[in-house]
Amino acid sequence: MRLKFPLMAIVLEIAMIVLFALFVEYEMDQTTPQQLNITTSTDMGKFLELYPLFQDVHVMIFVGFGFLMTFLKKYGFSSVGINLLIAALGLQWGTVVQGILHSQGQKITIGIKNMINADFSTATVLISFGAVLGKTSPTQMLIMTIIEIAVFAGNEYLVGEIFKASDIGASMTIHAFGAYFGLAVAGILYRSALRRGHKNEESTYYSDLFAMIGTLFLWMFWPSLTRPIAEPGDKPLASFMFLLLTQVHIQNATLAGGVAVGTCADMAIHPFGSMTLGSIAGAVSVIGYKFLTPLFTTKLGIHDTCGVHNLHGLPGVVGGLAGIAAVALGASNTSVAMQAAALCSSIGTAVVGGLITGLILKLPFWGQPSDQDCYDDSVYWECPQTCFFKGAYIERT
Amino acid sequence: MRLKFPLMAIVLEIAMIVLFALFVEYEMDQTTPQQLNITTSTDMGKFLELYPLFQDVHVMIFVGFGFLMTFLKKYGFSSVGINLLIAALGLQWGTVVQGILHSQGQKITIGIKNMINADFSTATVLISFGAVLGKTSPTQMLIMTIIEIAVFAGNEYLVGEIFKASDIGASMTIHAFGAYFGLAVAGILYRSALRRGHKNEESTYYSDLFAMIGTLFLWMFWPSLTRPIAEPGDKPLASFMFLLLTQVHIQNATLAGGVAVGTCADMAIHPFGSMTLGSIAGAVSVIGYKFLTPLFTTKLGIHDTCGVHNLHGLPGVVGGLAGIAAVALGASNTSVAMQAAALCSSIGTAVVGGLITGLILKLPFWGQPSDQDCYDDSVYWECPQTCFFKGAYIERT
Amino acid sequence: MRLKFPLMAIVLEIAMIVLFALFVEYEMDQTTPQQLNITTSTDMGKFLELYPLFQDVHVMIFVGFGFLMTFLKKYGFSSVGINLLIAALGLQWGTVVQGILHSQGQKITIGIKNMINADFSTATVLISFGAVLGKTSPTQMLIMTIIEIAVFAGNEYLVGEIFKASDIGASMTIHAFGAYFGLAVAGILYRSALRRGHKNEESTYYSDLFAMIGTLFLWMFWPSLTRPIAEPGDKPLASFMFLLLTQVHIQNATLAGGVAVGTCADMAIHPFGSMTLGSIAGAVSVIGYKFLTPLFTTKLGIHDTCGVHNLHGLPGVVGGLAGIAAVALGASNTSVAMQAAALCSSIGTAVVGGLITGLILKLPFWGQPSDQDCYDDSVYWECPQTCFFKGAYIERT
Repeated sequence: MRLKFPLMAIVLEIAMIVLFALFVEYEMDQTTPQQLNITTSTDMGKFLELYPLFQDVHVMIFVGFGFLMTFLKKYGFSSVGINLLIAALGLQWGTVVQGILHSQGQKITIGIKNMINADFSTATVLISFGAVLGKTSPTQMLIMTIIEIAVFAGNEYLVGEIFKASDIGASMTIHAFGAYFGLAVAGILYRSALRRGHKNEESTYYSDLFAMIGTLFLWMFWPSLTRPIAEPGDKPLASFMFLLLTQVHIQNATLAGGVAVGTCADMAIHPFGSMTLGSIAGAVSVIGYKFLTPLFTTKLGIHDTCGVHNLHGLPGVVGGLAGIAAVALGASNTSVAMQAAALCSSIGTAVVGGLITGLILKLPFWGQPSDQDCYDDSVYWECPQTCFFKGAYIERT
Repeated sequence: MRLKFPLMAIVLEIAMIVLFALFVEYEMDQTTPQQLNITTSTDMGKFLELYPLFQDVHVMIFVGFGFLMTFLKKYGFSSVGINLLIAALGLQWGTVVQGILHSQGQKITIGIKNMINADFSTATVLISFGAVLGKTSPTQMLIMTIIEIAVFAGNEYLVGEIFKASDIGASMTIHAFGAYFGLAVAGILYRSALRRGHKNEESTYYSDLFAMIGTLFLWMFWPSLTRPIAEPGDKPLASFMFLLLTQVHIQNATLAGGVAVGTCADMAIHPFGSMTLGSIAGAVSVIGYKFLTPLFTTKLGIHDTCGVHNLHGLPGVVGGLAGIAAVALGASNTSVAMQAAALCSSIGTAVVGGLITGLILKLPFWGQPSDQDCYDDSVYWECPQTCFFKGAYIERT
Repeated sequence: MRLKFPLMAIVLEIAMIVLFALFVEYEMDQTTPQQLNITTSTDMGKFLELYPLFQDVHVMIFVGFGFLMTFLKKYGFSSVGINLLIAALGLQWGTVVQGILHSQGQKITIGIKNMINADFSTATVLISFGAVLGKTSPTQMLIMTIIEIAVFAGNEYLVGEIFKASDIGASMTIHAFGAYFGLAVAGILYRSALRRGHKNEESTYYSDLFAMIGTLFLWMFWPSLTRPIAEPGDKPLASFMFLLLTQVHIQNATLAGGVAVGTCADMAIHPFGSMTLGSIAGAVSVIGYKFLTPLFTTKLGIHDTCGVHNLHGLPGVVGGLAGIAAVALGASNTSVAMQAAALCSSIGTAVVGGLITGLILKLPFWGQPSDQDCYDDSVYWECPQTCFFKGAYIERT
């Protein structure tokens, strides 16, 4: 482990540098000098317009997801640290994979928009990471990042380009996909010894407060998740309002509503519709936490550390179904069948991709922690002794 | 309590959905298809311009106010959680109430600007929440939110539309109003048993560091509080500079300066004027913490948990007085009398509204915590035992 | 101490107010009324464009640097608090000093751009603060702020106006300068009694998690450090992409890569070049932490609390050298000699300025803490007893 992880990280990084050297160029490189001024001024405008939204998405990915998972009492460093690792690798790999799919054999050009899309591809891996949090090694997460982003990009291409389905806020392609992928991996990696819980699988008062930082930053910037991919013609104004309203509405399952309205965020829906949809998602999420998560652990052999099924999976499905209903009611001109196909393909590719990934990660040489060492930073980090072991100290007393 | 709060929250949420269904529409709904393209491009520009400022205000409301109040050692979850609850309800209710006052019988249209204004209305309740922090139930806070936002919208209408007074940074209408409303409520709900303090009414090292997060985010984004309501003709550029300068200036009472310059932020005042004003507010605030707060608790029977009188009340009054002085010196073309009327009406409606609210909240069936249970998360939250009760453990030793 | 610090702070603040009263005006004051409308609309556009970037820089300065230094177990209040103190004074003083150098005898006008530049000048002092963290008094930091910003502004003028060297991301003028200035001060203030460490010079689990907040906010907004000073003609689009890419790349020494690419961020360099440069900086940084820092403490008599040499010093030098190499390869039309002169002058002025500052700070009447009291908030703050002294409690057990 001490050698395997840095070795793999360095090899992957060199691979990324080679891929970028071969295939990637800055967006403006092609412009000839005389065109440069004109193009630049337009590009610059678009750039300045998108830059604050890009930073919002960045805050969600790095602070939001990172701190959301700090709730475990001894796993805060790993939550933030592995989150950063996944995101750093994912941003590069997502740029390449999405670039290949959309550039049709030409050089991949990178601009602010590609980087936002790469951030999105990274979000799916971070959602799946939540399902296996504390039970996997950083090396395993590097492998999951590589596979999941490739499958994600394929499904995204299918949904957007082939089915031409509407999923502007990514209820299906990011949230449902990420959750079911992670659940499939968690199912394969199930550790029956941890069925009744683990002494480290609990939070402390402060670790929960740190997690609140993540929750708030995710919640606040949620509407920024939609805009960048929307073109001016896509009624982005209404989508934003729609998302903002739903947000406002969520009191119990804070983030579930935002997930659920993703699919129909650009459809012609009345404010009260979005509020109702948010309420339903919140209720479904709470019920999921209360009844489904324990059932999954004990009956299905799927242990979902962060409860991503309730936060991303179920609300994502609710969002997908709401999209189908909205299309059926004429709120958008995509077809019902294609929306349904998009939902099925998102869940289907996620489950198949997750199962295969799980089997690969089960191979015994990726440095997975022993049952005893689960949910414990000190396996991978040099941890300060005070405060960290005070918990243990008090418990032992 | 276990039943009353969710019941009330659900009823209020259904009421909000019904109100939105009846009265609210998206800003662009009225435009006919052929107008849509033109309107959209202009609207879109305005939207993109305001969106980053909206997010700044959002960060202040949710992270700033939320974490500012985490300083109590056992009340961090409630501070952030009830803050989120108030803000979520307040945003919806503020949209409706402000909409009714400004739409003159037409449908209320929501856009980014209304949402920013609704965020502002919410800020007053969060200020008042600081005065009664730890001594009230979430149910009581829902009721306070409903009443206070209605009174706030009335006073705001009076100050802006009838008196036509200048208060662009809201020293009077938000800060002084919120503080005196909260103090009036706190006066009515006074618990003489807690006069000499409470064992939980203290901070820990980490709870204070969490509070620093709130302080910094409030402080940094303070200038964003002004801009959105200012129209291009209002010299917003200078207002911003003005606020930024004052900020810079505040070293002791970090936030007081920002409060004080709110009223004259758009007036023609020299940079050094704003710095001096900020200094005065900071000094007044420090003196308030040192001498007034203890006096209020013991002599007046008003126990102000967060010291909102020093942070918002006094600097708000200083700001209002500075506004009167600036107008008298010819820095703006509003009238001295109207500025004075605005200050009096802000304090007057706040005190009357707060007293009535306090009397309603004193009714014995809102699940208020017993004296013993004040400042304690575990009344409303399932709290992790480790770290939380370690404090108690050490104390007992 | 109890008297010296507030006295000095008040005197400095009055000095600032006087300086502003004499020399500073708002950017728009000169415009005559009839010109106002036109100028305002252009200015307003530029303002709205720069405002989000300004806020990003602000977040880096106050939250990023502030929380980055909270890792010490008993020095969190001082880290955030003195950081705020330095930044508040630095912003005002930087405005004046930079204004004098660039305004050629005319009144200094302040706008959003000056304030961003003043934020930058403040960053150098915060970097130097990291080298002496825990071993100096707030009074000493006020003096260092005054001297360092003056020297910084001189060197910046030299590099930009005289040498006309390229350093858009400030690898040399901010990072290397700040680090070597701080190291020189730390060298003069060396305490041989602390050579083998200090009982408070360690972190706790939570203090390290707070430091993660700082790291992430610094990391995310890093690209915003470049843009504001770049003019449209400077190819800012590519610079951004360049910085973003490098960022992505950094996994070990998270922030070092961003430092290193500062100098050539606006040069015509291929994406993979920036990724390679980031990797080198990361590696150099890690090696520095492992081998150089202990060597500096024991052999050179320079104790660098936060390891700013590894985070800012070395990567800054790498960035400066990369700039020279890039210019030699024809990536920019500045001269190799001038780039080299810029690097030398940045390090040279920093070391000389730092040595002089160190000698002044060594005078025995600035209230420096005794060896025993180093790294301890309770010398300057009223600290809550619980949780804070629990560390000590456990240790004693």
